[in-house]
Amino acid sequence: MNDTFDLPRRQFLLGSAGAVASAGLLGFSPLSLAEQMPLPDYVNWKNPDALIVHSAKTLETQRGAIGTSIVTPSDQLFVRNNLPTPAPAIVADRDAWTVAFQGVKKPRSLTLGELKSLGVETVASVLQCSGNGRAFFPHGASGTQWSVGAAGCVFWSGVPMRQVIEALGGIEEGMRYMTSTGGEELPAGLDPKSVMVERSVPLRGVEQALLAWEMNGEPLPLAHGGPLRMVLPGFYGVNNVKYVKQVAFTAEQSEAKIQMSGYRIRPVGQGGAPDQPSMWEMNVKSWITQPLQQAKAGRVTIQGVAFGGAKSLLRVEVSLDGGEHWRMARFVGPDLGPYAWRPFVLITELEPGSYSLASRATDIEGDMQPRERIDNERGYGHNGWEDHGVKITVV
Amino acid sequence: MNDTFDLPRRQFLLGSAGAVASAGLLGFSPLSLAEQMPLPDYVNWKNPDALIVHSAKTLETQRGAIGTSIVTPSDQLFVRNNLPTPAPAIVADRDAWTVAFQGVKKPRSLTLGELKSLGVETVASVLQCSGNGRAFFPHGASGTQWSVGAAGCVFWSGVPMRQVIEALGGIEEGMRYMTSTGGEELPAGLDPKSVMVERSVPLRGVEQALLAWEMNGEPLPLAHGGPLRMVLPGFYGVNNVKYVKQVAFTAEQSEAKIQMSGYRIRPVGQGGAPDQPSMWEMNVKSWITQPLQQAKAGRVTIQGVAFGGAKSLLRVEVSLDGGEHWRMARFVGPDLGPYAWRPFVLITELEPGSYSLASRATDIEGDMQPRERIDNERGYGHNGWEDHGVKITVV
Repeated sequence: MNDTFDLPRRQFLLGSAGAVASAGLLGFSPLSLAEQMPLPDYVNWKNPDALIVHSAKTLETQRGAIGTSIVTPSDQLFVRNNLPTPAPAIVADRDAWTVAFQGVKKPRSLTLGELKSLGVETVASVLQCSGNGRAFFPHGASGTQWSVGAAGCVFWSGVPMRQVIEALGGIEEGMRYMTSTGGEELPAGLDPKSVMVERSVPLRGVEQALLAWEMNGEPLPLAHGGPLRMVLPGFYGVNNVKYVKQVAFTAEQSEAKIQMSGYRIRPVGQGGAPDQPSMWEMNVKSWITQPLQQAKAGRVTIQGVAFGGAKSLLRVEVSLDGGEHWRMARFVGPDLGPYAWRPFVLITELEPGSYSLASRATDIEGDMQPRERIDNERGYGHNGWEDHGVKITVV
Repeated sequence: MNDTFDLPRRQFLLGSAGAVASAGLLGFSPLSLAEQMPLPDYVNWKNPDALIVHSAKTLETQRGAIGTSIVTPSDQLFVRNNLPTPAPAIVADRDAWTVAFQGVKKPRSLTLGELKSLGVETVASVLQCSGNGRAFFPHGASGTQWSVGAAGCVFWSGVPMRQVIEALGGIEEGMRYMTSTGGEELPAGLDPKSVMVERSVPLRGVEQALLAWEMNGEPLPLAHGGPLRMVLPGFYGVNNVKYVKQVAFTAEQSEAKIQMSGYRIRPVGQGGAPDQPSMWEMNVKSWITQPLQQAKAGRVTIQGVAFGGAKSLLRVEVSLDGGEHWRMARFVGPDLGPYAWRPFVLITELEPGSYSLASRATDIEGDMQPRERIDNERGYGHNGWEDHGVKITVV
């Protein structure tokens, strides 16, 4: 997130944050379509009933629109763009899109058409904004006030970076990062480094990285980074660079602001700096998607989604009493691998009354969602189960 | 398929069959949108570029639109309706939809809202019309001239029939079939049995059956059977009854024409009869989706989809010379279970010239696609690899 360029938008959001955050907490927005901002042109194919439009560049999936059939349909997947979306011309001839590879033994440019002949793999992964859950931070972290819906689980198809690297003779010695650069046009009059989308991830991310041209069975939409996106399963959204035009293996991290000071975990009130943790691998997380307000006494189906971040899940538990007692939930549907989310369900008999529902996931290494959020200036990485709980009335 | 009611539509199709079938074989249709029939209103949310509109009730996915990311997006999934689609009013209050259950120890009606409290499961399965591949039959089998695109792989969420049966005290003794009835309004002036959509399947299908209310992460669209559809993974499309309003466990099969004489495998020229095999479980099948016409000399990526019908896949082979020699293809992406399809890929070096590409799948029990089609009156169940091959030119 760029701290200069986004100011006007953020100021708008601060004004409306309360209303929008509440809407998210309640599931489907109580705002009528007339009250809600219309869908911007570049995403006019999305389903407005399933989305909260925070701004032209930030759309959130309604909590109650997240279903149990694993995949998030493209038309209700969240959008978070750091810069204005490029013109549709860049998807007119997809195979002509060109990417420059550097920091390999045989550096060169490859077209998307050429990349397609190197290999193809498909992975299901959670795409999640670093700031998903920001609306729950009491200090008013600046940025889009996401509730739970800056996340989705989608299928990506593309060429594994491993195979691209192999075709280019391997990574040059001494390189520690993979640095991807977005193809957006930069706004005039600003230092490019202050606005460009260029992200570095440690080489451990390369193993599962894809250069993806297809999402959910269709050519990757422009709004989601088409014609070509760097997909880093297990890593926060910002690292999945859209319209990727350069991939460089580098000894140091990018000097772009989005890398140096942006997307860093730091105490409230502190500025960003390169020595703070960067938003790379995601942590274990879950939330309930139903019921969100009310249920009928008797058998009640409590459902939600959970994921291990960069690891498989071990279990999900559900509490009906704000965390006093926990019961094991059941996973629903096939396991799509360590980077996908898993819908879960607990069906139980409930008497009339008030219930404080919460879910708590544990990954395969035993890491469990904490109760509390970890306060940090920008409201990143929130996986505390208490804030993600919902209070419901059973009648 | 009803042999009386559909006559006018079929006559139209016979006229245009040649042109439409060729379009299918070539992948994306060479017909411009202006030449092609526009999308009917009830599916105006579909992607016209990915579809061939055969008629208002029959839409086929373009061969070249089938990708490698497993799931078929809802907006490019084929449509085949036996009767006109019900009014949208039936999805206005989805949870109020009512299904009558009979042939169980405690027969009763349940609303969709009540069904949701009984259980939820998610399955990925291939939905395929019995007549998929009909365009390849040389005798001119009547019915929609499907090439390969009357098939897709989607996620379904709903309650397992097992759990519904358990809640209703179990199946009554002596019952051998599960008979599902669609909620379409029947055209006036015709014998209901001659037009109604009511299908019986043997009880072995019940184990994996779902009453599904969600498809691909969204409430099941009306065009695909919303609010509630009987989903029978591994069984041909016709058994997956839309807008299901009654599920009865019966000693005999339905007396509806669609069951008694429709969807029966019989010699060319013969009428349908109850003693002929019914279109229940699907057989092992595959087809290439790319390239379909031309490729550039050098490394060429050959890809397609394969499924075992009601069983898992063992392998897929690809031939470049019309079946003289075969090479093992590689599966792409996670295995979504025995009822889903798997994208496959073979990347190989090709010199300029003509190639006759074919794919041949084998299921886990060793059943392999045959070379030839098995001729039958209505052009059902075609899984011969030769007709499904494609001739390409490498330049």
